[in-house]
Amino acid sequence: MADETMNFPSGRLAAFAAGLSYADIPPDVVARSEDLFVDWLGSALAGKFAAPVQAISAFARRMGPAGGSCEILMDRTSTSPFFAALVNGAASHVAEQDDVHNGSVFHPAAVVFPAALAVAQDIGASGKEFLAASVAGYEMGIRVGEFLGRSHYRIFHTTGTAGALAAAAASGRLLGLDAGQMLHAFGSAGTQAAGLWEFLRDAADSKPLHTAKAAANGLVSAYLAKDGFTGARQILEGAQGMAAGMSKDADPDRLTDGLGTRWATAETSFKYHASCRHTHPAADALQKAMLQHGLKADDIERVVTRVHQAAIDVLGPVIDPATVHQAKFSMGTTLGLIAVYGKAGMVEFEKGFRAPEVVDFRSRVAMEFDQEVDTAYPARWIGKASVITRDGRKLEVRVDEPKGDPGNTLSRPEIEAKVTGLALYGKAAEEAEMQRLLPRLWAVGERNSIGRLMA
Amino acid sequence: MADETMNFPSGRLAAFAAGLSYADIPPDVVARSEDLFVDWLGSALAGKFAAPVQAISAFARRMGPAGGSCEILMDRTSTSPFFAALVNGAASHVAEQDDVHNGSVFHPAAVVFPAALAVAQDIGASGKEFLAASVAGYEMGIRVGEFLGRSHYRIFHTTGTAGALAAAAASGRLLGLDAGQMLHAFGSAGTQAAGLWEFLRDAADSKPLHTAKAAANGLVSAYLAKDGFTGARQILEGAQGMAAGMSKDADPDRLTDGLGTRWATAETSFKYHASCRHTHPAADALQKAMLQHGLKADDIERVVTRVHQAAIDVLGPVIDPATVHQAKFSMGTTLGLIAVYGKAGMVEFEKGFRAPEVVDFRSRVAMEFDQEVDTAYPARWIGKASVITRDGRKLEVRVDEPKGDPGNTLSRPEIEAKVTGLALYGKAAEEAEMQRLLPRLWAVGERNSIGRLMA
Repeated sequence: MADETMNFPSGRLAAFAAGLSYADIPPDVVARSEDLFVDWLGSALAGKFAAPVQAISAFARRMGPAGGSCEILMDRTSTSPFFAALVNGAASHVAEQDDVHNGSVFHPAAVVFPAALAVAQDIGASGKEFLAASVAGYEMGIRVGEFLGRSHYRIFHTTGTAGALAAAAASGRLLGLDAGQMLHAFGSAGTQAAGLWEFLRDAADSKPLHTAKAAANGLVSAYLAKDGFTGARQILEGAQGMAAGMSKDADPDRLTDGLGTRWATAETSFKYHASCRHTHPAADALQKAMLQHGLKADDIERVVTRVHQAAIDVLGPVIDPATVHQAKFSMGTTLGLIAVYGKAGMVEFEKGFRAPEVVDFRSRVAMEFDQEVDTAYPARWIGKASVITRDGRKLEVRVDEPKGDPGNTLSRPEIEAKVTGLALYGKAAEEAEMQRLLPRLWAVGERNSIGRLMA
Repeated sequence: MADETMNFPSGRLAAFAAGLSYADIPPDVVARSEDLFVDWLGSALAGKFAAPVQAISAFARRMGPAGGSCEILMDRTSTSPFFAALVNGAASHVAEQDDVHNGSVFHPAAVVFPAALAVAQDIGASGKEFLAASVAGYEMGIRVGEFLGRSHYRIFHTTGTAGALAAAAASGRLLGLDAGQMLHAFGSAGTQAAGLWEFLRDAADSKPLHTAKAAANGLVSAYLAKDGFTGARQILEGAQGMAAGMSKDADPDRLTDGLGTRWATAETSFKYHASCRHTHPAADALQKAMLQHGLKADDIERVVTRVHQAAIDVLGPVIDPATVHQAKFSMGTTLGLIAVYGKAGMVEFEKGFRAPEVVDFRSRVAMEFDQEVDTAYPARWIGKASVITRDGRKLEVRVDEPKGDPGNTLSRPEIEAKVTGLALYGKAAEEAEMQRLLPRLWAVGERNSIGRLMA
């Protein structure tokens, strides 16, 4: 800490975010940030299908410039940094396939990358600068989410609130803010932080609005700070700051927990299957059994999944799903897609949730309460299943950490398959283009100037 | 209530805001809305002087289109509705001379008029439509501020939070939203509502950012709703809505209190003197004594102001103010400006706070605690003073309601003088231009299409 006057949580965070260089980040964290970046692109493209994203995009066209230095990924148009962050931020959070940090219940990619990409394209930053700034955003947002705590999450969509701070950190790092300016950017971002869960009751469109505004508001805050605009120094922990107004159990120690030694970025989980999270452990278990034993759908007589009570509560009522969305809450459908197509991604749900062979498999799947699984939940999501084959074997399978969590992360080929599926689902790119594009995306860190991502 | 499914507070507010027509508004309320509109214009012009407003304006130029259907008042440039609302919203709240509704501690003009003007200019709405929409915004924002209550105001800047809803109501009314769409606009506005007082601790620049964002976010919400974008139906009173997250004493009855019969717009106070509110009652009393008795500064030997304790607490420490801002918290300086120049506006403070005759008068002013004044405060701000003249008279004066409050409102010539002073202070217009402009502003309700306000 160079400046003793900044020796308080927000100040230490600002100094960290402003000072983080690519060389400071361990190679495995850099590699994970590349994984998270490529994974994010799939969600940003998939969002093209959604009416709320189209409405925000139409607003950007109406209110913004006709062109600019920044890219709206899903439709390849150009605009200013503000509107690029806004639209890409909206698009990233609507397919529900973007990454998540379990401990903070915060979705970093949807707010960090839209802001970082827009600023990097605006100023011609290098790939390494882009990745370092993105890591700064992840580290910031996750800690703010942990700080605001469970009482905050009960009312507020943490990705919207903490997200503004995360986007400010990433944007400010790219703009070269010093620690003092970064603190001002935090102040402006925190005083704009918003996002309420009330919309869930009506299945309204607010979720992508939250990520859109978090990304754009964080970006605004950084540009303003660069221009001398000041903000509160303790917007997080101050007596009239975010925690005072929006949390009952805020813990300031979480803000600076292991800053520079604990890399929260690498704790982030990928979403693998395109279904409700409660189906994932059992889906992983079935996939493991089929791979280990070389099984096809027709080889399987019956699957009994061993689950926690919440899975029965949420998934139990879904017997014969009528829509793609509802099918994502059907254990039988999810396992049927895996059995028939090998995976349960956006495309498989879209094309297969009513396919006869999937519906048939669905009827052969049951859920049973399991004490061990239930006790471990929610700290650990254990996957257990009994797979009974038509040739009379009973295979007991177990997965201790769900696919996509840090200890069971996605391989790069798995990420490529997921991203390609999302792009196709959104009708935002063809498979051939994605195949050409992906090697260039993995090499993002080698770009001298970030440039456009899509052709 | 046409639609029984909307018979809850947010729903009734949405139906009111969507359905309010010019003909429904009593003529005296229409006239007051014209007063508030012209008064607002002065603040929107005065803001040009402020560095934070310039920073937001630079951001708008960088991120927005080069031109557009809407006017940024202070510099006569054109842009899109979003950025016009943003910059005019920032400019309106920085001179601290914009209007205030006492009961809700809400500053309606700074958030309602920037949004309403931008939308009206964008769609070519008539002056009557503009005024009706502005009244809808005032009625909405004041009630939301009252609803959120004192516990909200302790942490949140109500003008920022309730302001987004007020701007949504005004914008949505102009865009012709039906009640259902208006409710969606409220949902989107409420889930973006933000603004924390923490910035006060550091005298940071967040205040104009709050009004800028409230105006712009409300406007966004209305345009999105017009395009089919949905929001929470009970963003105010719902279990995970604004009150749940940001208030401890929210009273839903306040949301619909006298809707259509009680005109909260007409309860709004004008700020008259450009000084701390605690100086106003005594300043009014001195002004009254000087007018009644034809006194000049040199005729006065001494003034003893009779004040409430809070005035002594806040103003007492200011003995020899070093800056214009500090001078606004000096009872002696404020009274000195009134004695010497006849008023204590922005221009008088700027040119006269260190003038020898003002400093001399300042030394002849004292404050004394008064039990009656203190007991009446804060419900009533009574002004009492003893004015001792050099020819030996002791004049006791009393003003029961401070100048600018609804029972002692500003005359149109007084508003014109105030607005002209603010425009000159901001170096945003010359006096001759204001003289040409003002008659056209008073006649805003007669315009077929609102058009540009400035030349």
